Amino acid sequence: MLRICLENVRTKAPLVHNITNYVTVNDVANILLACGASPIMADDKEEVEEITSICGGLNVNIGTLNHNTIPSMLLAGKKANELGHKVVLDPVGAGASTLRTETALKLMNEIKFDVIRGNISEIKTLAYGSGSTKGVDADIADAVTKENLNDVVAFAKAFAKKTKSVIAITGAIDLVSDANTCYVIQNGRQEMGRITGTGCQLSGMMTAYLAANPEHTLEAATAAVCAMGLAGEIGYNNMKDGDGNSTYRNRIIDAISNMTGEQLQSGARCEVL
Amino acid sequence: MLRICLENVRTKAPLVHNITNYVTVNDVANILLACGASPIMADDKEEVEEITSICGGLNVNIGTLNHNTIPSMLLAGKKANELGHKVVLDPVGAGASTLRTETALKLMNEIKFDVIRGNISEIKTLAYGSGSTKGVDADIADAVTKENLNDVVAFAKAFAKKTKSVIAITGAIDLVSDANTCYVIQNGRQEMGRITGTGCQLSGMMTAYLAANPEHTLEAATAAVCAMGLAGEIGYNNMKDGDGNSTYRNRIIDAISNMTGEQLQSGARCEVL
Amino acid sequence: MLRICLENVRTKAPLVHNITNYVTVNDVANILLACGASPIMADDKEEVEEITSICGGLNVNIGTLNHNTIPSMLLAGKKANELGHKVVLDPVGAGASTLRTETALKLMNEIKFDVIRGNISEIKTLAYGSGSTKGVDADIADAVTKENLNDVVAFAKAFAKKTKSVIAITGAIDLVSDANTCYVIQNGRQEMGRITGTGCQLSGMMTAYLAANPEHTLEAATAAVCAMGLAGEIGYNNMKDGDGNSTYRNRIIDAISNMTGEQLQSGARCEVL
Repeated sequence: MLRICLENVRTKAPLVHNITNYVTVNDVANILLACGASPIMADDKEEVEEITSICGGLNVNIGTLNHNTIPSMLLAGKKANELGHKVVLDPVGAGASTLRTETALKLMNEIKFDVIRGNISEIKTLAYGSGSTKGVDADIADAVTKENLNDVVAFAKAFAKKTKSVIAITGAIDLVSDANTCYVIQNGRQEMGRITGTGCQLSGMMTAYLAANPEHTLEAATAAVCAMGLAGEIGYNNMKDGDGNSTYRNRIIDAISNMTGEQLQSGARCEVL
Repeated sequence: MLRICLENVRTKAPLVHNITNYVTVNDVANILLACGASPIMADDKEEVEEITSICGGLNVNIGTLNHNTIPSMLLAGKKANELGHKVVLDPVGAGASTLRTETALKLMNEIKFDVIRGNISEIKTLAYGSGSTKGVDADIADAVTKENLNDVVAFAKAFAKKTKSVIAITGAIDLVSDANTCYVIQNGRQEMGRITGTGCQLSGMMTAYLAANPEHTLEAATAAVCAMGLAGEIGYNNMKDGDGNSTYRNRIIDAISNMTGEQLQSGARCEVL
Repeated sequence: MLRICLENVRTKAPLVHNITNYVTVNDVANILLACGASPIMADDKEEVEEITSICGGLNVNIGTLNHNTIPSMLLAGKKANELGHKVVLDPVGAGASTLRTETALKLMNEIKFDVIRGNISEIKTLAYGSGSTKGVDADIADAVTKENLNDVVAFAKAFAKKTKSVIAITGAIDLVSDANTCYVIQNGRQEMGRITGTGCQLSGMMTAYLAANPEHTLEAATAAVCAMGLAGEIGYNNMKDGDGNSTYRNRIIDAISNMTGEQLQSGARCEVL
């Protein structure tokens, strides 16, 4: 299934509309191209409905939200819902400011998201209405560990049931869950946290996976998470003496561009809980 | 002539004002520095006229246009025209939304562009007032091929005559044309389409080439197109096992930074039609 | 002292709020992560006070200022002052437009900056109220050389005294000065000027150094300048045939991510005047 999800992206080359932050936008565009999709970025309210209409999916990321782009997110999301397009929410920094938390909640109220992907602190903030984050990074106290895994799986399932969205919580251990089934993924490396944008890139790529596998949202989201983690491992193995986090960033995107379905299928460390 | 065009950029180090999208802006800045020019990005309407006044050329790119930057594009373009500076239009995504198409047409009505550079779908949109694109990429049905080359050359010449701009249509085969003469360039690699921003980078670098070669707009634009394509070839040859599209992006800019006039002269595959 | 400054950044991992330009923002985020800090970018006036409150330092960079972000800079700066957070000003392009010059002066009037870091032309503009720049680069006529070093040191001390800020003037020779003491740093390579964003990156990283070494502003700012210059040397030494300015950008950030306190201590070429 993972193999097929990846191959469908390469075959169908979905066009993905991104309303995303200006910090990691270039990486999001490059990883979308790397995985076989096509990115378009557009955030003016005059054009977002039209742009999203020609796309297969919409990726909404609040990383550098502002009073111009928030209305655009709402317009684009509603239009995407109306057209049955896949929509992903990346609530970057929810919990770090009232604007972010309230915007994320407002987006969730007015738009049906197929997947909500964030770190554990962001997702807890959305679930409980308030929370603690370390800026755009997860609070260490929230970390998903072997010890609390069952609790977090239960939390993810409950929140998926409540929101009717697939919930993807990424970190050292990744969870991708609907109300009934939770995939636990143990790919990736902790060094991925020392480069900016791996989360944003994953949300962009996940939108492409959903758009190319419309009947299999949970599996497609899981496949994207596995692919990103595996790319983190492959990219790390390709590092040489003197390489550091900037080269690592390139190596991860490189690994996505070279990844085959077979490689993903055999490299994924994914179990069902 | 190609050699001299490149060397003039390195000698004169023109300052180029860019009103461009936030997706590829960093790459545009780095390629301008790589080719020997200096970039400045400024898009607030309060400063764009003053900024463009101290520059040698203006690069207008509508990739992430919005209601704040559109008036700035108009103000800067008019000021650049008034001062006789070179001005390039990159109509990213024209045809993908009404806002993009209409903005590009409005810019063309109010500003005299020395060169309009886009993919074939974007240029057709500008010529016919509407068109089909695949987001920011060309529609495959529009592709310039050996079979339709003569027709597209005739189209480019006619559109150049009508607009009094040099028309640069880039893709697998590149055309740079005024009303009478069309250069056909066959440098480059198809893998360039799998990284974001090669078109935006070319428009930025082309503005530097025009500014440094003010009496030879057609040749300077052609030289920039050849340089970009050649860099795509050199960069590709410098790729190693495990490298992918993110490394390729770096290798292309690297190749521009190392390119000599002689290398460009001997590597360009350019004929006149 | 340099060693301790670096190690404190790695140990304390300060969260740094950046209101910065969209050209080099990704590099700023990556270098902050590379040095051991955590970046957050936020520029909407509704959230900047709250975001800066959870951070240890604020980096204000006017590289692509606009009428939305200028009020945000003022709000965030005042809040950071109120909370006793470290605040850095990077007056990118001051002197290139009235908007930039006046905004920088207004920021200096309303906010107490711990450090103001710019090239010599930008700092002269702030000191004299007007000046000449080559866009965002220093005017060659302004360059700090062995011949005029004593004069520039005196200028830096006087301006530091007047502003009650540490003044960091970076270029071929770097100066970091308060009213009494000026550090002169001779690390770095001229090739750093051929990539975009080394200055912006330095300002971001410097904010982290200040936040992690709150009692030693002058030394922490100096340590950041030394680290950046040394990274420029190490990165250059790691360049291979065919590498150019885009790879150099990555190599510099890589060098920061691998740099130890000992390496900084032994590699810094820093004297007191």
